[in-house]
Amino acid sequence: MKSVKVVRVGHRYVRDYRTLTHLCLVSRALGAEAIYLEEVEKELQETVGEVNRTWGGDFAVVEGKWKKVFQDAKAEGRAVVHLTMYGTPLQEKIGELRKRDSFLVAVGGPKVPGEVYKLADYNIAVTSQPHSEIAALAITVHDLQRGEELKKEFGDYKLKIIPSGRGKKVEEKS
Amino acid sequence: MKSVKVVRVGHRYVRDYRTLTHLCLVSRALGAEAIYLEEVEKELQETVGEVNRTWGGDFAVVEGKWKKVFQDAKAEGRAVVHLTMYGTPLQEKIGELRKRDSFLVAVGGPKVPGEVYKLADYNIAVTSQPHSEIAALAITVHDLQRGEELKKEFGDYKLKIIPSGRGKKVEEKS
Repeated sequence: MKSVKVVRVGHRYVRDYRTLTHLCLVSRALGAEAIYLEEVEKELQETVGEVNRTWGGDFAVVEGKWKKVFQDAKAEGRAVVHLTMYGTPLQEKIGELRKRDSFLVAVGGPKVPGEVYKLADYNIAVTSQPHSEIAALAITVHDLQRGEELKKEFGDYKLKIIPSGRGKKVEEKS
Repeated sequence: MKSVKVVRVGHRYVRDYRTLTHLCLVSRALGAEAIYLEEVEKELQETVGEVNRTWGGDFAVVEGKWKKVFQDAKAEGRAVVHLTMYGTPLQEKIGELRKRDSFLVAVGGPKVPGEVYKLADYNIAVTSQPHSEIAALAITVHDLQRGEELKKEFGDYKLKIIPSGRGKKVEEKS
């Protein structure tokens, strides 16, 4: 598996609580190590912490300014991939991206500062249509990992789902 | 391209306005023909209508009860694919699914009625971890279409993005 971290550029907390929660949980479920947010509200931290305790793993929600997060990622050798509907189509760059081993995937929105486009190594579009940073992130990670992220096992869980064609089967660790 | 329709089972409008908007726009951007919702608020209808007028296409938001939508889909020969963290892993079923030509993809949430599991042709998990129906939908459609959906052209637009490695280029139809 490639190493993936995520950063969300920009901040509109009140309107975006559910979107931020989705971004955190998608990042975790698809095997990212951490998500960086401009500001981390306690409620969100607790929601993600509870998911870790119940379902396993040690996914981290970290407070950090995007520019510093970009700099640190580059210093670690990560490719900084900014997802934007204005960028180069994912399918044109995926081959080149897969040559890299570690990534910082940046998601933002319409109000992302112009500097983000300049400081990113890649500006990548998952379609050139308006939709959702959650979907763009999911498809990008899925393609970077060639689907391997779907098989990730999360250690140290209380509950684990036993996949089933019908109904719900859950293993509870005693 | 496969024919895809989407249905959202369940209804929690006030809390979910942004999630619903994302579900609609992701469905549209990834080439689905329509999304069915238990209740269609005017504001949502207008948001999606404005996206169609600006960026093209004729994606539809339709009011419909999930059970009727399931029945109609089956009568049309669609495979009904319910996305749930409790289901069979997508990667185990994708080969079988790709043999079908048309789909109804159902997304719900923790409070989906048990009947949904029974009436769906497939209960499919995009990871067995809690995350986001938006991400699960995106990855499922992306895999069903083998990425071809990313190349979809939308007719009759006012604005069209010219993909670009840096910055924003938009073509405006006069």
